[in-house]
Amino acid sequence: MHRPTSMFGMIQSDLHQLEADLLSLIQSPVGTVNQIYTHLLQAGGKRLRPALYLLCSRSRRQEAVPSLVLAVAIELIHMATLVHDDVIDNAETRRSLPTANTIWGNHVTVLAGDYLFAKAFSIIAANGDNECLRKLTDIVCRICEGEIVQSKSAFDAGQTEEEYLERLAQKTADFIAVSCELGAMSAGHSPADIAALKQYGYSVGMAFQLTDDLLDVTASSQQIGKPVGNDLRQGILTLPVLYALQNSIHRDELREMIISRDMSEANVNRGLAIVHETDAVTYSYQRVREYLQQARSVLPDTLDAGARSTLMAVADFVGLRKY
Amino acid sequence: MHRPTSMFGMIQSDLHQLEADLLSLIQSPVGTVNQIYTHLLQAGGKRLRPALYLLCSRSRRQEAVPSLVLAVAIELIHMATLVHDDVIDNAETRRSLPTANTIWGNHVTVLAGDYLFAKAFSIIAANGDNECLRKLTDIVCRICEGEIVQSKSAFDAGQTEEEYLERLAQKTADFIAVSCELGAMSAGHSPADIAALKQYGYSVGMAFQLTDDLLDVTASSQQIGKPVGNDLRQGILTLPVLYALQNSIHRDELREMIISRDMSEANVNRGLAIVHETDAVTYSYQRVREYLQQARSVLPDTLDAGARSTLMAVADFVGLRKY
Repeated sequence: MHRPTSMFGMIQSDLHQLEADLLSLIQSPVGTVNQIYTHLLQAGGKRLRPALYLLCSRSRRQEAVPSLVLAVAIELIHMATLVHDDVIDNAETRRSLPTANTIWGNHVTVLAGDYLFAKAFSIIAANGDNECLRKLTDIVCRICEGEIVQSKSAFDAGQTEEEYLERLAQKTADFIAVSCELGAMSAGHSPADIAALKQYGYSVGMAFQLTDDLLDVTASSQQIGKPVGNDLRQGILTLPVLYALQNSIHRDELREMIISRDMSEANVNRGLAIVHETDAVTYSYQRVREYLQQARSVLPDTLDAGARSTLMAVADFVGLRKY
Repeated sequence: MHRPTSMFGMIQSDLHQLEADLLSLIQSPVGTVNQIYTHLLQAGGKRLRPALYLLCSRSRRQEAVPSLVLAVAIELIHMATLVHDDVIDNAETRRSLPTANTIWGNHVTVLAGDYLFAKAFSIIAANGDNECLRKLTDIVCRICEGEIVQSKSAFDAGQTEEEYLERLAQKTADFIAVSCELGAMSAGHSPADIAALKQYGYSVGMAFQLTDDLLDVTASSQQIGKPVGNDLRQGILTLPVLYALQNSIHRDELREMIISRDMSEANVNRGLAIVHETDAVTYSYQRVREYLQQARSVLPDTLDAGARSTLMAVADFVGLRKY
């Protein structure tokens, strides 16, 4: 996925350095470790979390020098969670490339994910910042909890929108919130401004994951680089599906289908059709807009003007992305 | 597995406290996390790594107060690696109980392992000791590398004894070495004595893993709490098998069987029979004794006498264990 180059202009050189640092980081004596890591890097990614960390680091004084170490560690942690997600979901493609588990098998891929987690924590420890480390290890615990809850609630047609939103926070938004918080802390912001930037990250993160879930029912597989309807196929009920379960005239049919756990292609397609007959997508995009409005509204006036307008642009971008 | 109570008499109350701390540590809002963790704790374990850490912590002055936090973190890291190992190996039982993956499935178990890793690193970060943290994160990287190499070299009948021993170091001995090193550091030993205790841990660790591999071909499944011949079944070639591949009159048959990757019960049993026809077990136990002799010989005379004799007893115990 490509982001508009201009949007991150302010941190362009930071992001180049990030890629260089990511590339030079892992030099394992074990060839397979390097191969998997290179494959993951080449698959690219939005680098949203480190980018927000970097933006927040420069949001008090643009000329502040952010810690690339933390930006690298944040991305490594994210990569580790994706690698394990793909094992867990038996995913065959991500970002239009074969997943690590498809190429190297589940055994090695679980270990490669562990390696990335440990490497991330190792470089933060070497950097000597225990508070950051604590926040990031706690976030990994929280992501795991969110994923476990998601796994336990698969095919549970009785779950509420509130439970769904709590999962989004655990899986995604809290990590993005902490990325912003750590950046704000490194910038030397006031506690109130740190809290505001953390809240911004939370709201952007909720909007981001909501959009991700929406794309799973609206985009083409070519656009998102993985099969459409993947969540429903696994019994993971996202906001549009939960909305349809409440509001569709075919809600009983949808509920029965989900409870039966029979996720044949015909059933997945029928399920998606039921969702699209309702205004589930419109409703969900409305929630996305609300989160983004929240994100924009909490940005303090005290921020550096360039950083502030970039953070505004990120919020716009998250609402518009189609892939 | 039970250890002789008297052996660890010196750190008996530390070990009780360790169990209590382990038990009270994980209070997740997600019930499944607590259930898995309780299951893992109830399955027990030798607590060898934290015990050696604690012994080394008290090996300068017995009345020194060791950090239970590190002992807990060391055991959590070990638990996390076991949990992921069992997913990777599709193991059904460990310590005569069903594995977490058998009860909760691979999805949730991978995440529970990630949670344990993160929790371990979190409590070390909270404890504020970056050097320890760095050493332990690096050990996790090394364990992953060892397991990846092991996975890549499955069914490779051409691997050497040297490569096998290097794997043991990566998988097991280096972690035990660092557990001793961290204990020695906390005791305030001289650099030479710290290095000696680290070397002791390495040698004990090599002997321990060699014995583990030997038990897979010599013990009954009742004794070790998991099926016998498990390594061979997965194509993991341990020292007795590598010895037989060099020295058995049926070495060509054994080699063909391994290369064919046909690990039917009949073939596993025939493979074990070929191993037992040679003096592979005698040879391997000789290597165990050599490592334990090394371990005993490096123990400095400057150690507290009680701690020194306990460390000697641990070396004896590792050579004798039959389960």
